[in-house]
Amino acid sequence: MAFKRRKIAVVGAGFTGATTALLLAQKELGDVVLLDIPQMEDPTKGKALDMLQASPVQGFDSAIIGTSDYGDIRGADMVIITAGIARRPGMSRDDLINTNAGIMKSVAENVAKVAPDSYIIVLSNPVDAMTYVCFKTTGFPKNRVIGQSGVLDTARFNTFVAQELNVSVEDVAGFVLGGHGDDMVPLVRYSHAGGIPLEKLISAERLEAIVARTRTGGGEIVNLLGNGSAYYAPAASLVQMAEAIIKDKKRILPSIAYLEGEYGYQDLYLGVPTVLGGNGIERVIELELTAEEKAALDKSADSVRKVMSILK
Amino acid sequence: MAFKRRKIAVVGAGFTGATTALLLAQKELGDVVLLDIPQMEDPTKGKALDMLQASPVQGFDSAIIGTSDYGDIRGADMVIITAGIARRPGMSRDDLINTNAGIMKSVAENVAKVAPDSYIIVLSNPVDAMTYVCFKTTGFPKNRVIGQSGVLDTARFNTFVAQELNVSVEDVAGFVLGGHGDDMVPLVRYSHAGGIPLEKLISAERLEAIVARTRTGGGEIVNLLGNGSAYYAPAASLVQMAEAIIKDKKRILPSIAYLEGEYGYQDLYLGVPTVLGGNGIERVIELELTAEEKAALDKSADSVRKVMSILK
Amino acid sequence: MAFKRRKIAVVGAGFTGATTALLLAQKELGDVVLLDIPQMEDPTKGKALDMLQASPVQGFDSAIIGTSDYGDIRGADMVIITAGIARRPGMSRDDLINTNAGIMKSVAENVAKVAPDSYIIVLSNPVDAMTYVCFKTTGFPKNRVIGQSGVLDTARFNTFVAQELNVSVEDVAGFVLGGHGDDMVPLVRYSHAGGIPLEKLISAERLEAIVARTRTGGGEIVNLLGNGSAYYAPAASLVQMAEAIIKDKKRILPSIAYLEGEYGYQDLYLGVPTVLGGNGIERVIELELTAEEKAALDKSADSVRKVMSILK
Amino acid sequence: MAFKRRKIAVVGAGFTGATTALLLAQKELGDVVLLDIPQMEDPTKGKALDMLQASPVQGFDSAIIGTSDYGDIRGADMVIITAGIARRPGMSRDDLINTNAGIMKSVAENVAKVAPDSYIIVLSNPVDAMTYVCFKTTGFPKNRVIGQSGVLDTARFNTFVAQELNVSVEDVAGFVLGGHGDDMVPLVRYSHAGGIPLEKLISAERLEAIVARTRTGGGEIVNLLGNGSAYYAPAASLVQMAEAIIKDKKRILPSIAYLEGEYGYQDLYLGVPTVLGGNGIERVIELELTAEEKAALDKSADSVRKVMSILK
Repeated sequence: MAFKRRKIAVVGAGFTGATTALLLAQKELGDVVLLDIPQMEDPTKGKALDMLQASPVQGFDSAIIGTSDYGDIRGADMVIITAGIARRPGMSRDDLINTNAGIMKSVAENVAKVAPDSYIIVLSNPVDAMTYVCFKTTGFPKNRVIGQSGVLDTARFNTFVAQELNVSVEDVAGFVLGGHGDDMVPLVRYSHAGGIPLEKLISAERLEAIVARTRTGGGEIVNLLGNGSAYYAPAASLVQMAEAIIKDKKRILPSIAYLEGEYGYQDLYLGVPTVLGGNGIERVIELELTAEEKAALDKSADSVRKVMSILK
Repeated sequence: MAFKRRKIAVVGAGFTGATTALLLAQKELGDVVLLDIPQMEDPTKGKALDMLQASPVQGFDSAIIGTSDYGDIRGADMVIITAGIARRPGMSRDDLINTNAGIMKSVAENVAKVAPDSYIIVLSNPVDAMTYVCFKTTGFPKNRVIGQSGVLDTARFNTFVAQELNVSVEDVAGFVLGGHGDDMVPLVRYSHAGGIPLEKLISAERLEAIVARTRTGGGEIVNLLGNGSAYYAPAASLVQMAEAIIKDKKRILPSIAYLEGEYGYQDLYLGVPTVLGGNGIERVIELELTAEEKAALDKSADSVRKVMSILK
Repeated sequence: MAFKRRKIAVVGAGFTGATTALLLAQKELGDVVLLDIPQMEDPTKGKALDMLQASPVQGFDSAIIGTSDYGDIRGADMVIITAGIARRPGMSRDDLINTNAGIMKSVAENVAKVAPDSYIIVLSNPVDAMTYVCFKTTGFPKNRVIGQSGVLDTARFNTFVAQELNVSVEDVAGFVLGGHGDDMVPLVRYSHAGGIPLEKLISAERLEAIVARTRTGGGEIVNLLGNGSAYYAPAASLVQMAEAIIKDKKRILPSIAYLEGEYGYQDLYLGVPTVLGGNGIERVIELELTAEEKAALDKSADSVRKVMSILK
Repeated sequence: MAFKRRKIAVVGAGFTGATTALLLAQKELGDVVLLDIPQMEDPTKGKALDMLQASPVQGFDSAIIGTSDYGDIRGADMVIITAGIARRPGMSRDDLINTNAGIMKSVAENVAKVAPDSYIIVLSNPVDAMTYVCFKTTGFPKNRVIGQSGVLDTARFNTFVAQELNVSVEDVAGFVLGGHGDDMVPLVRYSHAGGIPLEKLISAERLEAIVARTRTGGGEIVNLLGNGSAYYAPAASLVQMAEAIIKDKKRILPSIAYLEGEYGYQDLYLGVPTVLGGNGIERVIELELTAEEKAALDKSADSVRKVMSILK
C-alpha cells in the first residue's frame, strides 16, 4: 500500500472554480483537476498552469491540470461542481433554471461514470435544486451529494459582525438555516461573538441591518463588480467543506442536505446544520425552532419547491 | 507604543493586483488597500469585499478595502504597483511603453506624497524601465524601489524541472539573472534539485528545452488564456518578495535592482541576485560570470537601455 | 524606517517556557530570547540552539537565543513570564506564594528596566496574584500586564466537549470566568458547539462531569506525568494571547485583567472576557451575570484576595 | 469509501517522541498514538492529553493518545521509532548497542504483527544499525524501513550557514552523505545559499569550522543541556520525512537507506540522497563522488559495519 494523494475535480473553471482550485492546492488537500467544456479547454489549461507555477513560491505540492476530458477526473475522490451559466438580460428565471439543470445533468452523468465513489459538493445556481438534480442523476447516496450556501452566508454575516464590533473574524460565529440569499433564515439567538450572544452586544436595529445586508450580500458584490458575481468567499466556502470531509474533521457546518423527515421535510434539499466528516454529511443536527423560525424555514422550503416545480 | 498592523497598498486592481491582495491577507502580512482608477472604484470595492468575506472561513485577520483615493493609502508601509495597460492590437511597443510610463509617473508621484517612507515593489510592464521611472519619480533611495521578474521566471523554471524529474517543487532551485522573458539569463550551473546540479540530472537537450519554455512562459499562458495574461504566479512572486521584506527574512531572491557599478553597469535597473530584508534590497550579490554569461547579461542590459531610450 | 522583527522574551526556560518559545518561532511572531537564571544558562542555550536547528526544516525565520542576562532582552516588545517554582513536598502554600512573589518581583524589576515599553503576559503561579505583583512592581499601565488562565481552561473544556460530541475542536467554544482550576466559573450558557448551546447537545449530568474534569484538568495531567505539570496546552495558550496582541487581532479571549470597578471589583486581577489587540487588553467585556454566577465569581475573587493577603 | 485520517504511531515517548507527536498533529498528518513501555504508560498518557488540549488553541484536528498497548497502533499507516536508551556512565558502547538492538527487535516484532503494511522511520541510536535490525526483524521491503540522520545533520549545517551569512534559513541547502556525527560526509560542493555554491560565499577556513561544528552538533547540545540530548530538531527532521511520504511529495532528502549495490555497497544501511514519496524510499540518487568523497563514505560505511559486528 502506498500513500496516494487525493484527486479532486473542480468542474467549471470560471472565477469560482479556478479560485477553488488554488485554495485546494494551497492546503495540499490533493491533486486538482480543473475541468470545463471543450470550448474553454485552453483557458482552463492556462489557469491551471499559471496556478501550478505559483506552487514553488507558495510551497505546495499539488498537481493542477486543466482539461475538458472527463477521463482526466477518473477515480476522483471528490468533485466540486461550480458549472452553470449566470442569468443574462432577457432570460427568464425558468429558462435559467432549466438551462442549468441541463448542464448539471450532463455533468452528473459524467461524474457518476468516471468517479462513482466520489463525494460531490455543488455550488451551481439555484443551488438547492441543482444539488437535487445531481443527487437524482448520479444516484449517489445522500451523504455524498452536498450543496453549499450556508457557509458563505455565515461568512458574510460574520464579516459584517466583526466589523461592527471591531473584533477578530475568528471569534464571530453566525448561524443560518434555509436557502441562499432572500430565503436565508438567520438564527440570531445562536449567533455569537466570543461566545456571547450577539443580541447582548449589538442593538436589535443594527443586527437587523446586518441580517438584511447578509441576505443581499451576493447582490451587493454583483452591483459593485458590475460584471460578474462573487468568487473569493464562495470558493473559500467550498474549500472549507471539502477540507472537513477529506480530513474527516467532523466540522459542524451548514450544508444543503437531503432531508427525509428532518425538520418535517421530505425529499427536499435544504440548508441545515450538519456534521461534515469522512463520510460527507455524517449527521443532520435537528434543532428546536421557534414558531417564527419554523415559519421562515417553511417559506424557504417552499421557495425550493417552487424552483423544483419549474424543472422539466 | 501599541502593536499596529502593517499597511500594504496594492495599486492596480486587475487580476494580478487582486490576487496579490488575497495572498497578502492570507498571510496576515498587514491590512491591504487595493487601489485603482476612479472608473474602476466600484469593481475594486467589490473584489475587496468579496475577499474580506473569505476571511472568516480562511481564518485571517486583515482588513481589505478597495478605493480610488490615494488618501486611503496614506502612511502605507509597502506599496506594490501592478498598474499599467496591456498591449492592444495596433498599438506600437513605443506607445505602450510611454503610456505605461505615464501611468507609473502618476502613481509614483501620488505614492511619494502619501507614503513617503514606503517600500515599493513594481510589476508593471516593461518592468525594468517602469521600476526606473518609479525610482526617479519618487526620489526614494534605491533600496526601497524594487522590481519583480526573476522570482516569477525562477518559479516557472522550477515548475518545469519538478515535472521533468517528478520531484517536489520544494527541492528545485533555479537561478536567473537579467531581464524578463527573452532577456532572461538562466544560470544553469547554479540551478539544482536537492542540491544536485541540474546538469547531472537532466540531459543538456532537455534542460535547453526547459530554459526555452521558461523564456516564453508568459507567452504560453497568454496563448492559452486567449484573453489576458498570467496572474497567479506573478502575484505569488510579489508576495514572496513583500514577505521577505516585511518579516526581515533576508531571503536571497532575484530582484530588479538599481545598479551603481555592480556587474559593471551604471544607472540601470536590472535583474540580479539580492538579499531582501527589512531594508528592502540589503545587498546585491555579485557573482563571477563566464564570458558567455556576461555577454548574455550585457545583451539583457542593452534591451533595458533600448526601452529606456524610448521613454520621452 | 526599516521593517524590524519583534523581539519577544520568554522568562523561565522550563518546559512551558521552552515550548512557548518554539510555538512563537513557528509562527514567526518575532525573534525569541529565552531567559533563565545564571545556573540554568547552559541548558537554556542548549534548548534555544536545538529549536533554532529545527528552523530550516520547519521553515521559519526567527532567531532564538538562550541567556541569563537581562541585557539580552533589552527593548523587548513583549515579555512572557513563566518563571516560578512548583510546590515541593513539605512546602506550605504560603511559602510557595512568597517564594514565587519574590521571583516575580525580581523579574519584573529587571523587565521594567530593560524593556519599559513591553507588553507582559504572566503564567507564573498563583497567576492572579503574580500578575498583580508584576503590575505593581513594573508600574506599567494595566493594559500591558495580563495574566493567562482562561484560555487554558477553555482549551481543556473544549477538548472534552469535542470528544463528547465527536466533533471538530474548531467548532467548540467554551466560556469561563474567574480564577484557574477550582476557582474557575464556567458559563455553560455561553458555551457552544457550532453555535448551538451545549445544554441542547449534552445532558446536564455529562456537562457537569466535563466542567468538573476541566476544573481539575491541571491536576489530572500532574497525576499522569508523576513528575511535573502540563506545558503543551499552557504554552499554546500563552502564544494565542501573544499573537492576538502582536498582530492586533482584537480577539475576544479570557484574560486575567486588572479591574477598577468592572463586575463590581476594585484593585484586583481576575479572569474576565477581554478584547486583546495591539494595545494589550483593549477592553473588558462586562456581562450580566445570574445571581448564581455572580456568587461563584465573588468566591473566585475571594480566593484571589486570600492569596494576596498572604503576600508579605 | 469514506475519507479516513492516517494513523501514525510514535514508539518511544521521551522528549523526541513527544515533540514528534506534537509536530505531526500540528500538521494534521493523521491521528497520533504515542507508545511507550508499561512503566511509562501514565506519563505517556499525560503528555498526549496535554498536547490534545493544545489542539483547540492551535486549531488542529488530530486525535492524540498515549498507550503502552501495541493493540492501540493496530493498522497504523506509519510508525516512527524513537525508542532506545542513552548511554549511561560506566556502560560500554557495545552494551549500549546490544541493549538498544534488543529494544528494537521487540518493537519491530510488535509493529510487524499489528501494523504489517506500515512505513517505518527509525531514529533510535546507533541509527544505521538499528534501522538494519528493524528491517531484518520486520521483514518489510526496504522502501518501507528508513532511518533518519541526514535531515538533522543538514538542518544543523544550514542553521550555522544561515547565521554565518546572515540570510534566511529557507535559502540554505546543505548536502550530506554517510553516517551521523563523526561519520557524516558533507558534500560542500553540493551545498548552496540561494543557489550559489557556499565555496563562493564563505572562506574555506570558516566552512571547515562549520562542518566541524555540524559533526559535533549533537554533542554541543548534550554538553549545554547537561542532562539529555537534542529533541526539537530531531523531531522536526522525522516529521519532514513523514510528511514527504504521507503526502507523496517526492522530496529529495537524505535517508538511511538499504543499499544493494548503490555506491558500491551491499546489504548495508547508509545515509544517501533519496526521493521520499508515497512509496517511502522511491529512489536512491547515485552521485559521482570524488576519490576523497568516496574514501570518506567508505570510512562511514566501515563505521556502520563495525557497529553491526557488535550485534549479537
